[in-house]
Amino acid sequence: MFLLNAWYVACTPDEIKEKPLGRTICDQRICFYRGVKGQVAAVEDFCPHRGAPLSLGTVKEGKLVCGYHGLQMGCDGKTIAMPAQRVKAFPAIRSYAVMERYGYIWVWPGDAGQANFKDIPKPSWAGRDDWSFGGGMFHFKCDYRLLIDNLMDLSHETYVHSTSIGQQEIDEAVPETVVQDDIVTTTRHMFNIEAPPFWKDAMLSNKLDPVAKIDRWQICRFEAPSNVMIDVGVALEGCGAFDASADKKVSSIVVDFITPETGTSCWYFWGMARHFQVDDVALTQSIREGQQSIFEEDREVLERQQQNLLLQPERKLLKLNIDSGGVHARRIIDRLCKKETTHE
Amino acid sequence: MFLLNAWYVACTPDEIKEKPLGRTICDQRICFYRGVKGQVAAVEDFCPHRGAPLSLGTVKEGKLVCGYHGLQMGCDGKTIAMPAQRVKAFPAIRSYAVMERYGYIWVWPGDAGQANFKDIPKPSWAGRDDWSFGGGMFHFKCDYRLLIDNLMDLSHETYVHSTSIGQQEIDEAVPETVVQDDIVTTTRHMFNIEAPPFWKDAMLSNKLDPVAKIDRWQICRFEAPSNVMIDVGVALEGCGAFDASADKKVSSIVVDFITPETGTSCWYFWGMARHFQVDDVALTQSIREGQQSIFEEDREVLERQQQNLLLQPERKLLKLNIDSGGVHARRIIDRLCKKETTHE
Amino acid sequence: MFLLNAWYVACTPDEIKEKPLGRTICDQRICFYRGVKGQVAAVEDFCPHRGAPLSLGTVKEGKLVCGYHGLQMGCDGKTIAMPAQRVKAFPAIRSYAVMERYGYIWVWPGDAGQANFKDIPKPSWAGRDDWSFGGGMFHFKCDYRLLIDNLMDLSHETYVHSTSIGQQEIDEAVPETVVQDDIVTTTRHMFNIEAPPFWKDAMLSNKLDPVAKIDRWQICRFEAPSNVMIDVGVALEGCGAFDASADKKVSSIVVDFITPETGTSCWYFWGMARHFQVDDVALTQSIREGQQSIFEEDREVLERQQQNLLLQPERKLLKLNIDSGGVHARRIIDRLCKKETTHE
Repeated sequence: MFLLNAWYVACTPDEIKEKPLGRTICDQRICFYRGVKGQVAAVEDFCPHRGAPLSLGTVKEGKLVCGYHGLQMGCDGKTIAMPAQRVKAFPAIRSYAVMERYGYIWVWPGDAGQANFKDIPKPSWAGRDDWSFGGGMFHFKCDYRLLIDNLMDLSHETYVHSTSIGQQEIDEAVPETVVQDDIVTTTRHMFNIEAPPFWKDAMLSNKLDPVAKIDRWQICRFEAPSNVMIDVGVALEGCGAFDASADKKVSSIVVDFITPETGTSCWYFWGMARHFQVDDVALTQSIREGQQSIFEEDREVLERQQQNLLLQPERKLLKLNIDSGGVHARRIIDRLCKKETTHE
Repeated sequence: MFLLNAWYVACTPDEIKEKPLGRTICDQRICFYRGVKGQVAAVEDFCPHRGAPLSLGTVKEGKLVCGYHGLQMGCDGKTIAMPAQRVKAFPAIRSYAVMERYGYIWVWPGDAGQANFKDIPKPSWAGRDDWSFGGGMFHFKCDYRLLIDNLMDLSHETYVHSTSIGQQEIDEAVPETVVQDDIVTTTRHMFNIEAPPFWKDAMLSNKLDPVAKIDRWQICRFEAPSNVMIDVGVALEGCGAFDASADKKVSSIVVDFITPETGTSCWYFWGMARHFQVDDVALTQSIREGQQSIFEEDREVLERQQQNLLLQPERKLLKLNIDSGGVHARRIIDRLCKKETTHE
Repeated sequence: MFLLNAWYVACTPDEIKEKPLGRTICDQRICFYRGVKGQVAAVEDFCPHRGAPLSLGTVKEGKLVCGYHGLQMGCDGKTIAMPAQRVKAFPAIRSYAVMERYGYIWVWPGDAGQANFKDIPKPSWAGRDDWSFGGGMFHFKCDYRLLIDNLMDLSHETYVHSTSIGQQEIDEAVPETVVQDDIVTTTRHMFNIEAPPFWKDAMLSNKLDPVAKIDRWQICRFEAPSNVMIDVGVALEGCGAFDASADKKVSSIVVDFITPETGTSCWYFWGMARHFQVDDVALTQSIREGQQSIFEEDREVLERQQQNLLLQPERKLLKLNIDSGGVHARRIIDRLCKKETTHE
């Protein structure tokens, strides 16, 4: 179950540099490429001639050329030309609202008439020189909502990521979940503790004493359709935690844009935006590699959890206080999906 | 959808040299081997004893011996013997009309009583010293009719085979399709053009100037159930094209015998018969390798096209003039299949 | 079709040394591990919190800790603890009757209330110093009953294992099948023959002349749910065969505990217990390797037989005298399954 009338991250700009990209999003096969002026285009990945995937073709002067018989497709899903053919009466294929913004290509898999570019969520660090960003993409064979659950309940860090960001104190700190205006926020604070390995490294890179006692925070924020931004960081103990001055803390945002592929698989665009040592390119790279290893640890748990749930689709799961963020996120998704279906 | 009462190429003689061969043809699992006098035999690949595939067994003095418990099967599907057993009452398994001819093993997957060896299609070059042949076999995960479409519309060469046999002039030359006596012929002529790389090589090997202007022809001929023979070649410009004298041209026949495995997969027996430098064994080999690379390029397009079509089975495709050959071939197949079903 | 209220071999002790083991038995996903005092435990492989497989977790002081959020599961399927949670009201998951005995971990996939440890079948050599045992495990993609058929009709050795234990005389010796008290025994004797390679090696290792004429026996014994013990061996000709004195023979028991995974796959715990040169560790190892190679030969036949049968589920197979052991074994299984279903 997923919203169709919503903006999802489809890909990153480097994925459509030269060749078109075929990617299934919300059960729809879409071909992404750059049109005449370099603007992003997205059309159904189906040549109206004989049904070959257009993504196997090429882009020639901004026109998508089918790799089978040379039909030239336009960004609007209308055939522009085909060798020795009149194409006016060719049936149009579907085109999608699509936009490049904030380092991503965004697509609206639903009714393009309802798409508004202003609704593309602007990350708080976007366009700011005092922030750096690094990230990547994974394909997970699980319902995108299992990943939302995962990100809204970070108590799993202690078990799944025990050697990097996990620590017993996460489990012991009771999280608080608040819902306001279809945004779910789950907050957890830990005071006067030792930093786990990942944060020790971060402190060191920001010239803080890695063995000093710290206060740690995790503020997970879900917004429909499936975006989870998480304020994370540690500050020297007693300096105000999240509100400590910049020289007393290391502070980042874990970025999670999750795009359903099918009902049981998703594209996971992850990354970390940070507010310290922003010009240190090597640091960006080392954080990116660390985060990649950590998020890779989630894969087996989530994919095997998915397999277990598919075998017993009716079985009820527990909804504990730690699950509150995910539970509320699902309720919002359910309500919006119902609204979308009713309106159509 | 495929005809059952028809001759299909099942395999090549080298595939049943020592061990029996198990191959699914038209959804039927068949075991091919050589009987007592070396003649080809084909029986159901199912031992009547416990259902093991007979193709896992051995051939002993022309008898097919089951590799599980030693049942000896005869070419007629009747059990000959089994250790310490009386086999008279054993149920027969199905046997198939089968024949070795023209370098292939042919099978009739339908009612053997209707099979007539005279109907096995004789290639025009068969048994002629002034022709040479080289070929191979592919397994394609697509409906065999997608491959017929492909071969009856060579405008795809410009896109799928752009570095070997493709050239813009193919697209520009309007093809002509004629149907007569259940045979579909699609003809395309190109005059006063430059030869593409594959044909330049062929000209050179036949001592013609590879950069000379040429006339090129493609005469695709479909015959039920699924045979496509294509006259192809180039002649020095103005010398009569297809009808030019032998020293002014390079002339071949692209051979395509296509055998359905299932509704969405097929065995593709391809090759090239040529009418020049017939004694040049190295040339036969290099043409075979070139053709193999070229036909391998079709695989991804056809298999991905198949996947796209399976997701939208009801969606109508275009039927342009270039598709006329394939469209008429499908009509003939449809009519013959209907006739076959009605008669049964 | 398989019995649920029965003891099956689930795994060997070395499979649950450190990490828990997830294994599907009779269509049920089960997590095996060692509890507080080292005793074996088996619970549903499904965390009641969010459905993650418990087998991905760890065992900590005999408690199974979920690898996702740290829920601690007890051997009885009741949650012991979870960080910062009250777990009393957590729903229990299923636990299974399980026991370590005779070198195996046994599980009762049905109603634990009906399980009686006394019913775990005691191998005749268990705990005896004058016997040695070596074995292994395979996963076969076939109905466990195809493997029972295979083991109750050793005439397949001549064809499937022609280079090791097969010989023409097996086929020629008519077997005798007796059913008593739900135990099926199929016996075959061969007199005054030459030993096949495997047994020549065994004779040599027991200081017998490998080229001497021998008497050979095979006594296959099926017991529900799916255990097949086979007395096999050779004795110097005329010395009493199976009853010959120890210095005149080599005598073993082929051990086959077969555990259904699903309706079309099984776990095959095989081995050989022998009554000669019991202290020769190198001999145990070389017999184990030989047996592994031999049983590996059965895999392709059985898996391909399974595929053939799935395509024609209604097709009747032959039931010859050599199949009598398997046929009677299946009748017993059918009857017990029917009884089990009726009682539930």
